Amino acid sequence: MAAAPIRIYDPGDPRIAGFVSIRERDLTGRDGLFIAEGTVVLRMLGQGAARGNGFAAEAILLLENRLARLGEVLDAFPESVPVYVAAQPVFDAIAGFNMHRGVLALGRKPAADIGASLLGRLPAASLVLAGCGLSNHDNVGSIFRNAAAFGADAVFLDETSCDPLYRKAIRVSVGSVLTVPFARGLAAEAMLRGLFEAGFEIWGLSPRGEVPVAAIPAACRIALVLGTEGEGLPDSILSSFRTARIPQRPGLDSLNVATASGIALYQIALTMGRVS
Amino acid sequence: MAAAPIRIYDPGDPRIAGFVSIRERDLTGRDGLFIAEGTVVLRMLGQGAARGNGFAAEAILLLENRLARLGEVLDAFPESVPVYVAAQPVFDAIAGFNMHRGVLALGRKPAADIGASLLGRLPAASLVLAGCGLSNHDNVGSIFRNAAAFGADAVFLDETSCDPLYRKAIRVSVGSVLTVPFARGLAAEAMLRGLFEAGFEIWGLSPRGEVPVAAIPAACRIALVLGTEGEGLPDSILSSFRTARIPQRPGLDSLNVATASGIALYQIALTMGRVS
Repeated sequence: MAAAPIRIYDPGDPRIAGFVSIRERDLTGRDGLFIAEGTVVLRMLGQGAARGNGFAAEAILLLENRLARLGEVLDAFPESVPVYVAAQPVFDAIAGFNMHRGVLALGRKPAADIGASLLGRLPAASLVLAGCGLSNHDNVGSIFRNAAAFGADAVFLDETSCDPLYRKAIRVSVGSVLTVPFARGLAAEAMLRGLFEAGFEIWGLSPRGEVPVAAIPAACRIALVLGTEGEGLPDSILSSFRTARIPQRPGLDSLNVATASGIALYQIALTMGRVS
Repeated sequence: MAAAPIRIYDPGDPRIAGFVSIRERDLTGRDGLFIAEGTVVLRMLGQGAARGNGFAAEAILLLENRLARLGEVLDAFPESVPVYVAAQPVFDAIAGFNMHRGVLALGRKPAADIGASLLGRLPAASLVLAGCGLSNHDNVGSIFRNAAAFGADAVFLDETSCDPLYRKAIRVSVGSVLTVPFARGLAAEAMLRGLFEAGFEIWGLSPRGEVPVAAIPAACRIALVLGTEGEGLPDSILSSFRTARIPQRPGLDSLNVATASGIALYQIALTMGRVS
């Protein structure tokens, strides 16, 4: 049962300090907190936390006219999570911009995991993504959305990839960063070595890959490795593992890395019989 | 041979009025002009115009330190296209924001085409996209990038879809809106009827589609129809044509429409033997 809503009249009210100027502040990486936006993401945060996925809500802030429609979504949160409500001018003054969605939550991240714990929890048959140098929040958000759509079991990100719990990445992922398990923080080589030692067939995705993605054979455990846009995967990685390409017209700028992840996941999930 | 560069010292100089406050102004749809950003797009504009694709440059504005590296790119433009050069503070004052790329062109669109002329120019074997209600510039830009990657012959957009020559769409497309022929402006039904009468097998893409995209049979002419994100294609279209889906995990928010276009194009291009 959700808490009774508390009306906020003053944008300077200390109770909603965590929601102030969210566009300017990068909450991620500080205090273990993150900002979730929108009804879909709020629902996923509540359901996931209720299932014990490690995420939790610290507080919820709603535009007043959103409250009536959110009863069922709010019911997923325990009564200990305060629900604040504000009129549009107050809400905008808090957020620092005109925030059409009118639905915000301050979330708390689970304990950080650089990879070992997540590796140990993966099912015997697994499809995972491994990102190296994915520094664009839109791309990382899209990659998680694709991972969820094709049932990837986890996403591993190296130390140079950005935090998927940054506000914009969460939004672009449509909340999938709250549902697809991930780990982040190892050097790329150590991350891939860990996957290799855990029995993963490792495939680097590159426009210069040796075989088309449709020729990646089914395997019990497959890790698809994605590099940063522009540069792509470094030669040290491309030369250490097998590589696959997405067939496309020659002479063009390669596909966006998030789109490429979607195409490769689609093809591998088909090959592995994970979707039909 | 490009024109000799002209140095600009005053952001109010009338010669560069077309570049003022480009982020605030939506040039598209007015005066037949558009703004192209970045070296890659500038190169595509110059090469395309030189090939006679209907696009032309009215003027070029560069950050002073970009000039030396752009010699070959600028050589594609006729001497009648002025090349203006400005120092960073002047450049930023013109553009209205800190514009890291430092490469801008004011382009002129070809004569508008709502579809009939483009239909008549398509090759016998064609793969085209048809967009209905694609109102997000990022998605439209990404869709053109995918169309180029998989060699689609054209993109048709209905009257409710946004203009691909909007600044952000051009940038996200990495210039593909200047190379993939497109038409825009018919009602969705008339647009699809035109394609049908031109011999296209018409396939609506929808999470509720009847067959997986891999089951779309090869055909001489295929049109893949994309709907707006969220709503998807209207029932009137889904019930009038065959429909295909991208196999994915049930119960999730569907794929982003641009990602879905990439996956479907990949699969259809493979089926049609257009990429390998």
